This record gives sequence, C-alpha cells and structure tokens, in this order.
Amino acid sequence: VNRRPIVSVVGSSEVSAEVAGLCRELGRLAIEAGYRVATGGLGGVMSHVCEGARAAAAYREGDTIGVLPSYDASAANPHVDIAVPSGIGVARNVLLVAMADAVVAVAGGSGTLSEMAIAWQLDKPVIALCPSGGWAADLAGRAIDGRRDDRVEAATDAADAIRLVALRLAR
Amino acid sequence: VNRRPIVSVVGSSEVSAEVAGLCRELGRLAIEAGYRVATGGLGGVMSHVCEGARAAAAYREGDTIGVLPSYDASAANPHVDIAVPSGIGVARNVLLVAMADAVVAVAGGSGTLSEMAIAWQLDKPVIALCPSGGWAADLAGRAIDGRRDDRVEAATDAADAIRLVALRLAR
Amino acid sequence: VNRRPIVSVVGSSEVSAEVAGLCRELGRLAIEAGYRVATGGLGGVMSHVCEGARAAAAYREGDTIGVLPSYDASAANPHVDIAVPSGIGVARNVLLVAMADAVVAVAGGSGTLSEMAIAWQLDKPVIALCPSGGWAADLAGRAIDGRRDDRVEAATDAADAIRLVALRLAR
Amino acid sequence: VNRRPIVSVVGSSEVSAEVAGLCRELGRLAIEAGYRVATGGLGGVMSHVCEGARAAAAYREGDTIGVLPSYDASAANPHVDIAVPSGIGVARNVLLVAMADAVVAVAGGSGTLSEMAIAWQLDKPVIALCPSGGWAADLAGRAIDGRRDDRVEAATDAADAIRLVALRLAR
Repeated sequence: VNRRPIVSVVGSSEVSAEVAGLCRELGRLAIEAGYRVATGGLGGVMSHVCEGARAAAAYREGDTIGVLPSYDASAANPHVDIAVPSGIGVARNVLLVAMADAVVAVAGGSGTLSEMAIAWQLDKPVIALCPSGGWAADLAGRAIDGRRDDRVEAATDAADAIRLVALRLAR
Repeated sequence: VNRRPIVSVVGSSEVSAEVAGLCRELGRLAIEAGYRVATGGLGGVMSHVCEGARAAAAYREGDTIGVLPSYDASAANPHVDIAVPSGIGVARNVLLVAMADAVVAVAGGSGTLSEMAIAWQLDKPVIALCPSGGWAADLAGRAIDGRRDDRVEAATDAADAIRLVALRLAR
Repeated sequence: VNRRPIVSVVGSSEVSAEVAGLCRELGRLAIEAGYRVATGGLGGVMSHVCEGARAAAAYREGDTIGVLPSYDASAANPHVDIAVPSGIGVARNVLLVAMADAVVAVAGGSGTLSEMAIAWQLDKPVIALCPSGGWAADLAGRAIDGRRDDRVEAATDAADAIRLVALRLAR
Repeated sequence: VNRRPIVSVVGSSEVSAEVAGLCRELGRLAIEAGYRVATGGLGGVMSHVCEGARAAAAYREGDTIGVLPSYDASAANPHVDIAVPSGIGVARNVLLVAMADAVVAVAGGSGTLSEMAIAWQLDKPVIALCPSGGWAADLAGRAIDGRRDDRVEAATDAADAIRLVALRLAR
C-alpha cells in the first residue's frame, strides 16, 4: 500500500502578509511534491496553506484537510476540501499531528508549541520554517528532549521545508 | 463554499459474502453520487465499502477515508486513501460520525450500534441498510429517542440507501 | 493495589419523579457498597444519582465524579465532587464508560444507548435498571452482539442493580 | 458550589532522587492546602507526587487522580486513588490539563512541554518548579505567547509552587 503522505502544517491563526506568502508557497510546494496537506482548518497559517495548495498545478480536489475543534464544519476556511469537525476541542491538535507523516511549523504561539511537542512525542519529523518567527523559529535546530537522536529541522524557506520533509520521509 | 458531502458507513468487521457485495455496491454508488466515503478503516464493511468506492467510474484518489482507533496508519485496509490514525481508541467512533454529513449503517454489532446512537445524538441523518441484518435492521424505521421528528431511514438495498442519503442532504 | 471500583451510571437528562427516586436510591446504595460513582455530570439521572450518593452514610467528599462534555466545570450539577470538564464533546460518553468498572443504565435515549453499546464493546459489565424504561429496559436481558457470552443484566430495582454490580465485580 | 480545586502536576516519567523529593513535597503540600492532585498516572513525577499526597496529614482516599493514556487501569502507579483509563492516548495530556484549576510543571520533556502549552491555551495558571530543570525551568518567567498578560510563574521550591497556586486561585 502506497498512500500519499500527509504533511500537517501547524501555525498561528494570525500572521503578517510576509508569512502568509510563505504559507501559500509551502502549501503549493507540498502538493507539487505529491503530498496532501492537513491543517487546523481555521484562519491564518491554516487558511494560507490551503489556499496555496489549491494554486498548485498538481492540486486535485481532496488535497486539503481541515481538522476543526468544534462540530461545526462551516467553521472551516474556504480552501479546505475535507472538513473534519472533530468536536474534541483542543485535543484536535493531537489528532492533526497523529494523522501526519511529517509536521511543518510556521510562526506559532501556544497551540503550535503544543503541536510541535506532541509531534516530537509521537516520533514524527518536525520541520520549522525559521523566517516565520514564533515557536517555530525558537525550536528550530533544537532537540525537544532526549528521547530522539534528531532535531527540529531548521528550514530557511518554504522550498527548504519541503526538501527537508522529503528527506525525512525517504528514510 | 460547497464541499463534497461525506458519507460515513458504519458496520461489522466481519460480514457474509452477500453483505460484502452490498457494501461494494454502496461504496460505488456513494462515489458515483458525488460523495466521499469514510469508514473505521479496518476490515469487513469498512474494507468492502472502500473497495467498492474505488471501483466507481467517478472515483478519484482521496475519496476513501479511514479513521483508525490506533496511531498505526498501516492498520488501514488497502482501499483507504486517507488514513487517519487517531490514537483515541473507541472514541474514533464518535469522530467518524462527527465528520459525516450522513451515516449509513450496515449489519452491525455494538460498535455500529454506538455509532448509530451517536449519529442520532449529533443530529445526522441515519440510514440503515435493512437486508444486512444486525443493528442496522433492528433500528430501521425507528426513532432512537424523542429528540428528533424523523426516524432511522430503512433502505431496501444499496441504491435505496444512496437515494435516501441524497433526499436527506437535499433538505 | 486495591482501588475502590467506579460505577458509571448513564441515563437521561430528564426523568420522572419516580425514576429520580430510583436514581437517588441507586447512588446511595453504590456508595454504601463501597463504590465511587461517575456520571456525565449534568442533570436528570446524572444529578439524582450524585445527590443520592451524598446521602449515603458511607459518603465521603470525592465520591461523585462528573465527566462533562465542555471545558466548563461550572456546568456540573451541584452534587458533583470531582468535575472533569473534558472538552471532548460527545466523546466524553466513551470516557465515562472507559473509566468504569461497571456501567448501570437508567432510562435513556440515544446518549445512553451509545454508552451501553460502548460498555459492551469495552467488555464492561452492563446492568440495566428495568423499571426506568428507555433503552435500559429495551436492552435488559439481551446480548448486544455475539462477542460476549453474557447479557445486559436486568435489575428489578436499585438494590438489585447494586447486587448485580457486586456479583459481576466479584468474578 | 464550592469544589476542591484540582492541581494537575505534569512532568517527566523519570527523574533524579532530588526531583523525586521535590515531587513528594509538592504532592504533600497540595493536599495540605486543600487541593486534589491529578497526574498522568504513570511513573516518575506522576508517581512521586501521588506518593507525597498520600503522606499528607490532610490526605483522604480519593485525593489522587491518574489520567492514563490506555484503557488499562492497572497501568496506574500504586499511589493513584482514582484511575481514569482514558484510552485516548496522548490526547490524555489535554484532558489532564482541562480538568485542572492550576497546572504545576516539574522537569519535563516533550509531553510536559505540550501540557504547559495547552494549559496556556486553555487559560489555566501555569506554575513551573524551577529547580527541577527541563521545560519547566526553560519556560519559567516567560509568556508562552501574547494572548495572556501573565507569565509562567517561576517557583523556587515546592512550597513556593503551592503558594503561587493559591495566589492564582484567589484571583
């Protein structure tokens, strides 16, 4: 069985125009590389990544997944193809990470920090988009704890992030 | 925003050859009608529905979703395009229902019964495939409790089940 | 390690005065028998059971647990000692059952039905208080599916329910 | 309604003898102050805190809660009075935080980091036991993001941690 990998992108619900551009590029390149993208389904990073995914030449309907905290599918941003209104509140952060083959962090406050930490705990590759700031930048290049031999991968831009995802998935 | 509806099919992990055939027909017709199908991702009804979905002329990769109880994506049946290894155990039954626009029950023991009950509680249309037996047949035509004015829809075959889904989603 | 067993009582959020009396008796006798009681923490059966528990001679603060669907602990009924604002919505039904050593069902609509089905699936003893009606009465004496050799125990009154719990926990 | 507050203590599953002593002191003082303690129910910090709680003069059976990732209550450490075998895996980290009135972090790797981040996100007071090292020490005195006006409280020892919990709960 050879399923398309899922890249979950975690990040802030409000970002600058510059970071929004990085997110669109990240979403687009993830799809061009053959991945599906999953996000928390709401605004900011979550929306920009899905928007970028849809702009990819390789995009097909079904490539953007949004895992929502509430039971209300209509809360999903308009670029989400598959809304998952989980109803489990903040625990949807865990679900979003659990379903990922790799996690890319962009900017990020406490929610993103929790997702990076859970990704580490669940032994998922974690890639941080450094120029986006936030917890992504803070944890880039660091080992979150001693249980793993690797580090949070430090990506210099969106293309580098997808390159690092591919490297990690090839192992 | 006009997302393709998700039909979650809930049912037994072991079924007769006859019910397996009903499941494949159900999966196929769901895709031909424009829906995405979600199941619990394992064997029996879950596998046959996904297999049928893939046999539809309208099928596109990404149309079959499997919401697994464990963190192990490799537990998904081979016909699942999008594996969601939730790690939340039996609570994935709730998730599978929460993400549905309509729920179709086939045969079914206690797991399926819980899913029909939760679907009722979450105000989702519930359609029971009568000839499959199990809890689907037992609850067909009944109101599970008094909070709703409708009933579990009794479908006489796979085509009737998809017709009833369409009727309910059109409301 | 010898922890006090937890009896989760599942049931309707609105009940008659007669059933309310049965619930208070059930809660009281559960505590007198040395159990802790857990409920969904809201009204109706959930509240009456906790109220009864507090009226037991053997009651000690901490004996009533309420597992709430929201993050709002203040939603718990006033007889709950330990509020667990889970934030996982309807999935708290699964949690309430998972933490139980035995499950007693009283009256009950779709939520209760889901909890009885999940208890069966998780291999917990299920006792139904027959005179309360609802799904408890409907499933009393039945096997929910073929995976177990036992049946939903049919209790004729609150004392009988606690006697059946004790019998099952003694195995 | 005046329920006893729940202090959830989050921390590493393996700690030094020195940190173990801090944990026992923390557990003991939490009970003496009138709180109930909740942990993840397993070893290390989780076990030492429960052990300390039981050594308090004010301790009563029911004062130590262990929220386990699996469905297996027997996995709880022997000092847990109320085992909650949640079956939701790592998502139990969210549950442990959601049920808390205040969260105290001790040492800590990725699991603890996720719990501190979620506590911040759910607007719970977060107190870090500085001398224990780990993520507790790293985040002490910091704001995890800009959504709140406060900081992770930096406690110099167990008594200071409980003093800070009391201060925060008094607001």
